[in-house]
Formats: sequence, structure tokens, C-alpha cells
Amino acid sequence: MATIGILGGGQLARMLALAGAPLGHRFLVVDSAEDACAAQVAPVLRADWRDFAALEAFASKIDVATFDFENVPAETAEWLTAHTRVFPNPAALAVAQDRLVEKSLFGEIGLDTPTFAAVDSLADLHRAVEKTGLPAVLKTRRLGYDGKGQAILRQHSDIESAWDALGGVPLILEAFVAFESEMSVIAVRSRSGEFRHYPLTRNWHSNGILSASLAPVAVEAELQRRAVARARALAERLDYVGVFALELFACGDRLLGNEMAPRVHNSGHWTIEGTACSQFENHIRAVLGLPLGDTDARGCSAMLNWIGELPDATPVLAEARAHWHDYGKSPRPGRKVGHATLCADSAEELVERLQRVGRALDREVHVAPVIAALAANGTA
Amino acid sequence: MATIGILGGGQLARMLALAGAPLGHRFLVVDSAEDACAAQVAPVLRADWRDFAALEAFASKIDVATFDFENVPAETAEWLTAHTRVFPNPAALAVAQDRLVEKSLFGEIGLDTPTFAAVDSLADLHRAVEKTGLPAVLKTRRLGYDGKGQAILRQHSDIESAWDALGGVPLILEAFVAFESEMSVIAVRSRSGEFRHYPLTRNWHSNGILSASLAPVAVEAELQRRAVARARALAERLDYVGVFALELFACGDRLLGNEMAPRVHNSGHWTIEGTACSQFENHIRAVLGLPLGDTDARGCSAMLNWIGELPDATPVLAEARAHWHDYGKSPRPGRKVGHATLCADSAEELVERLQRVGRALDREVHVAPVIAALAANGTA
Repeated sequence: MATIGILGGGQLARMLALAGAPLGHRFLVVDSAEDACAAQVAPVLRADWRDFAALEAFASKIDVATFDFENVPAETAEWLTAHTRVFPNPAALAVAQDRLVEKSLFGEIGLDTPTFAAVDSLADLHRAVEKTGLPAVLKTRRLGYDGKGQAILRQHSDIESAWDALGGVPLILEAFVAFESEMSVIAVRSRSGEFRHYPLTRNWHSNGILSASLAPVAVEAELQRRAVARARALAERLDYVGVFALELFACGDRLLGNEMAPRVHNSGHWTIEGTACSQFENHIRAVLGLPLGDTDARGCSAMLNWIGELPDATPVLAEARAHWHDYGKSPRPGRKVGHATLCADSAEELVERLQRVGRALDREVHVAPVIAALAANGTA
Repeated sequence: MATIGILGGGQLARMLALAGAPLGHRFLVVDSAEDACAAQVAPVLRADWRDFAALEAFASKIDVATFDFENVPAETAEWLTAHTRVFPNPAALAVAQDRLVEKSLFGEIGLDTPTFAAVDSLADLHRAVEKTGLPAVLKTRRLGYDGKGQAILRQHSDIESAWDALGGVPLILEAFVAFESEMSVIAVRSRSGEFRHYPLTRNWHSNGILSASLAPVAVEAELQRRAVARARALAERLDYVGVFALELFACGDRLLGNEMAPRVHNSGHWTIEGTACSQFENHIRAVLGLPLGDTDARGCSAMLNWIGELPDATPVLAEARAHWHDYGKSPRPGRKVGHATLCADSAEELVERLQRVGRALDREVHVAPVIAALAANGTA
């Protein structure tokens, strides 16, 4: 029995605790929020990331620390490593916290990226646009998530307004990629160096927030092999321990690295029911140095995210092989409050399930791209 | 979101809370034990079953009450029904608390039982032996579980010693059944009257404690149909709400009712990974009046109980499609402290998994009967 400390008490911490409890492990979460939803299933220490007295008490009660949130301050992660074991290591966290460092590293491990340039001034931005062409996306290098901290530049006249909106912090300009699909590799590396990956997942976003995922993706074996090889190279380069997501754009047979998330990831939620060992259980296993679990897909799965507020659960509960997840959070626009995963043995069966649920919840628009992908490609 | 109160804070309450949390529900457990293992995943109110002031506070905080333990005093269950909704109802609980009432009810719904007779005196016991023949089993009518409160009578000279060991409380004498196998039906009935059942499970006991389960059992469709029909008749007769287990002896094509457990049951633990909706989730759905979930078996599953202390988890964690459950309890002889479930797509694959795990844990004896059953019959 180990006690695992988690920095951040959102739904990822909640699902980590729910996955680790059957294995006999205990959890202690640190979060400053009054209503951290992980508190419903694990003890929570209410403290700020920079409250080192509280962190000392936290460190003394746990065997290993990990994260449900990648934007924990680097100094906090560094401080913790002097007081307990921390996985993933703070250097890996730091890479994922800075889009410029992250994209540069992608290049070093042989993963192409959209053309990009650092932007620290309006003059930089003008030069960067020459390099990337238009349209392009201006992003904060740090603290962006779910589409926050971004501005799209479609024409030269957008340059100044984008600078006005985001300038003053370190930025990066990235060429806009007319990708065919967004995909992610969810992979895990343990303290012993063992590496495993889940099948490629295809993702759809709405207003910058993940809307739906489908796995396994029907792609050429060679594309899957390259994506996994890059994920593995990244993990080994960072001496990464735990689960992470590598988000990719697919353009024909090209793969471009978009970003990495140094934690369990929304696009891996389908693994709870779609595999024998979920991303959450494998993260626990990895940070404790236990053997990694089975990552093969059992049939095919589609995950639908509930943003802002939950729809009626009944149509999902009434559907065979459909799984409801309510994170116990209060509703708020743009907030991830739950998800549903629908599983099936075939693409046809999954399409039927998506159609029934989409219709019953008046969410035809939500399920349509997933159904279209299944109709066009089936599943792997 | 509902708050579900559970009387009893053992591993069944723990697994109920872990199954209900993803659905967004909250739990409050009542248990007098200092170290109730459900406390690791849900809030626990420490109180005795007869502390009505504490129960009043409990009832005021919950939407519905249920049980992890069937021997809650009838007066407690009755008291609760006046203060909150209670499922299963106290009358159903009372039937399962008394072996004589239970066996009589089995007869009324057309389920054969071993020959039995009530025993309240030594003279009764002599008469009862004439009726049942020998060998026979003398049992306390109430509060027996895991083989406790039982004495086997092999010859007439055992009558007095059995009476000396158990006499003084209401007893039942049952003819000893030379059964070929022990099986259970895990079934669920919801507040709306919806009824579902899991495939028949075969069980093995060691020293009166469940040692292993295998599902689905390869039996004739007619036998399965009869077993399920009896379970359904029982549930309807009792206006039962929630999951229950009907334990049966199979002798050729005869089925004899052994006992009913008015709660989620050890022989249904395999449903956590072996079906889309576990007995724990379905119990939550049933007591909340939600649609019941999918009870079909996904492949075949074997569950191995860990009694007294846990073996090394590593060989199970290292096996594909093998699932480790540690209840967070301290070791104690005869105590159920955890289990493992091994899943597979075929009987052959499951046999291989059982052999590897049995060998690695030096538990060949533990897995041997399950392997023998798979070799003889395969799975349904």
C-alpha cells in the first residue's frame, strides 16, 4: 500500500483516485479550491501551490507525488523533489509548460511541427508572420489550455489586434495547419523504463475544447508506428515517468506535433472501459514502479465530453455498453463536467449507439463527426 | 446527484462507493468499526446499529439507505424505513436472516431445497435426523456466514455434541447434499420492477469461505432458465429492490436452493471487469430507480479470493487482463482481504492465465478446481 499525493484536485485527480483505490492505494490531494471535485473520493489538503509549510506536511504523508495539472509552478515541483519522489520529473513538466521549448524538442526527436517562431515584440510578430505565412495562430508560450490564450491571424491587418490582445508575455506564432484530423497517442513509461501505448485516438474540438474522441483510429500501420515511435522517443528523452499525451495533426501521411500533456489526458478517458487497464491505473502503476497493464483496445470506443452542464443521463444509462461519468462539479460555461463513453464490438454497432444517444440527447451535431469518421474509415 | 447511505463499511460498501462515484453519486457509510475499509473512499459515521440518534443524523443526510451486511438488526431496518427510503425492504432482509423462513419461502416459489427441519430442542434434533437422514448439517437459523455457526452430523453419535456446540438458539437441520457443483445467480431488480440477471456463476468454497468463482458457467440453457426464473420469482415475491445472490446446489439436472444473500455478493465480484455494468453499479442504479445496466458477460472470468492475507500482487499485475483488488484491510485469519479477477476471450486463454498466476503465487491448489472445470466444460 502506497499513498500517492496529487497536485490538483480536478476530475483527473478524481479518476486517478478511483482507479488506484481498488489496488489498495491511498491518496492525498492538494488544491486551493473550496470545491475541488476529487475531495468527494479522497482527502484534500487545501493549500496554495506556494504554501511550502503545507507542502511539507503533504510531502511527509505521501510516498510519491504526481499531478492532475501541468501548470503547477516549476519552483513548487522543484521544491517537492527535495522532499519526496515526484513523477513526472519537474524538467519534463517544464518542457510541457512552454510551447516554444516543447516544439523545439519535438524537432530534436524527429517530429515535424507546424512552422513556428518566438514572438516577444510587435516587430518579432511581423517577422514571424513572414516565416509562417497566414493564416497563423498566436499563442501564449505558457499557461494556455482548452484554447485559452490564443488568437488567429487571418490577414496582415490582424497583426496589431492580436498583439494588443496577447502581447506582454512570451508568445509563439504557429502556422495554421489545414489538418485532416487531430489525433493523440496516450502512452505510459514506468520508473523501470517499461513503455506502453494505447491505440491512436482521434479527437474533435469545439471552441478549443475537446468535444469527442474515437479509438482505435483506422490509420495505416506505418503512421501508427511513427506516432508511437515519436512518443517513445519523447518519453525517453525526458526520462518521463507516468502517462502522457502527445497531440498530433495528421495531414495525409504527415504527422505534425501539436503539444504534449504531461499527465493523464481527456483524450484517454475512453480507456476506462475500452481497455483492460485504463490510463489512470497505468499512471498509478508507473509512478509506483509496478508492472504496466494491458493497453489493447477491447472493441472500439467513443467518448463524448460534457461541457458547461450535464445532459440528462437516462439515455446513456439505458444504452448497452454505455458509461456515464459525472465529475461532481457545479455547472459553469466552458467547464468540463463529465463525459460518456460508448463501447461496441464493431464500427456499425458503435454508430448505432452514437445515433441513439445523439438523438435522445438532441446532440446530433456532437456525435455527427464521430459517426462520419466511423462511416468513412471504420475502426482499426 | 444522490447521496446513498450504506449500513456496514466493509469491502462491499467500498466497492459500491467506487462504482457509484463515476455516476456522480455520494455516499455516507455507518459502521461502528474503527478501521472500516470503506472509510478510505467515502465518509463514515461511526455508530452502533442501535444508536438511533446517530441513525437520525444519518437518515437526514441521505436520499436512500442500503446495506453491505444482511445482519443489520430488523428493528434498525424498520426504524430507518420511517425516516428514509430503504432498499432492499426490511421484510426481504428478515427472510434472508432466518434460514428456516428462507428455505420455506424457496419451497413456496417452487425451488427445491435439501430436506430440512426446525430444531429447538435435543428431542427436535433426534426427530429431525429421522427426517433428513445422515449426514446432515446443523446450522443456526440466524447470523451464520462463511461457514460459521454450523456442525456436520455424520453418525447418530454426533447428535449430542452438535447440540452441545450450537443448542440454545433456534436451529435448522439440513440433509447433507452430495452436490456436483455450487452455483449462484446474481440478479438485480429496480424500483420500477425492471429485472436483470448476470450469467450463472460457479463457486468453490474452502473451509466454508468462497475461494473462487467462474463465469459464465457452461450449463444447459434449460438449467440456466430455471435458475433465473426462481431468482426472479423470489425477487417479485419479496418486492425486492437491489442486487441479490441466490446460491444453488446443482445435482445432475436438479437445482436445490441453498441460501439467498440480500446484497451484492462475493460471487459477483467478477462482474466488475467481466461485464459492462457491475453488480455494484447495478445495485446503485436499482436503489435510485435508474435504468439497469448491461449484464452480459464479456468473455469469461475467474475470480480468486484472497483470505487472511494478500499474496504478492506482482504476478497478477504483470498478467494481461488480470485485475487486482486490495480492500485496504489488515490481515487476519479467515478474513476476506482482496481478490483478483482474470478475464479472457476463451476457456483456453483463461486456463493459461490461471496456470501462470497459480504457479507464480504458489497457489496451484487454489486454481486447480477452476482449471478442471474449464477443461471439462469450457465456458458458456
